[in-house]
Amino acid sequence: MAMDHEDELLLAELLCGRRWGALATASADGPLASMVAFVAEPGCSGILLHLSRLAAHTRNLLAEPRASLVIGAPDGGAGDPQTLARVTLSGAVEVVEPDAADYATARARYLERLPGAGPRFGFGDFGLFRLRPREARYVGGFGRAWTLGPAGLARLCPADS
Amino acid sequence: MAMDHEDELLLAELLCGRRWGALATASADGPLASMVAFVAEPGCSGILLHLSRLAAHTRNLLAEPRASLVIGAPDGGAGDPQTLARVTLSGAVEVVEPDAADYATARARYLERLPGAGPRFGFGDFGLFRLRPREARYVGGFGRAWTLGPAGLARLCPADS
Repeated sequence: MAMDHEDELLLAELLCGRRWGALATASADGPLASMVAFVAEPGCSGILLHLSRLAAHTRNLLAEPRASLVIGAPDGGAGDPQTLARVTLSGAVEVVEPDAADYATARARYLERLPGAGPRFGFGDFGLFRLRPREARYVGGFGRAWTLGPAGLARLCPADS
Repeated sequence: MAMDHEDELLLAELLCGRRWGALATASADGPLASMVAFVAEPGCSGILLHLSRLAAHTRNLLAEPRASLVIGAPDGGAGDPQTLARVTLSGAVEVVEPDAADYATARARYLERLPGAGPRFGFGDFGLFRLRPREARYVGGFGRAWTLGPAGLARLCPADS
């Protein structure tokens, strides 16, 4: 069943309008959930993260790159939270090396959206990472759930957004 | 270093004032992040979840009970999101069986806080689960991070809250 237009808009808003999500990483002690800032790249081909190598989630990613990011509409505290839209992006996280051809573009995109992160680009322990979404599982409420692959995400998020 | 009073209040608000968090579970395909509703039990000795056995996170928990729940202050979209308070609770999830001595109390507590979940207690695929926090990692912003165990959580969350 194709997504209806309302859910397409809700999903695009989560991916491109939000900037704070929860990352699941794996460690020998079990899975870890932590909040991270994120910025979607054009066509949602990648999700940029700027992380400290001193943080547990980063150490986890360097040992096991598979990860999952959930982005949820904010809970206003009223009604049934299960009706809130959310999307889980699953895939693997790669390092965006400072000498990579796309580093400057990625850094500029991240900082355009999250200018407050500027000073942290001067910290030695911070680095840029990219989650490559293999699958997106969107839930817009009861009976409104869809799974999208990279092509579906690219269609939703215009390359020039 | 002991937590300052402001951070104690922020942490208590996350645990007792919020009701929508992100759960990290483990699967053979890697970690999974998903949004779940939660209700803290007295003294934060347990975090109640009401989950469908049809959901991927529940299947994951039944195979690997170790999990982690992150609760974050909502992002208003301005400023640096890294300054937002959040807490990660890590531990193992157990089933609260319908014939358990504490089931009725747990169910009543859950429904008092999340009355919209009422109809789902009649669905055969839903069940009550409890995350037992082994450790809480609170971050109130830069340079404001503390790790608490069950005793620290119990002190923060009064047993009659």
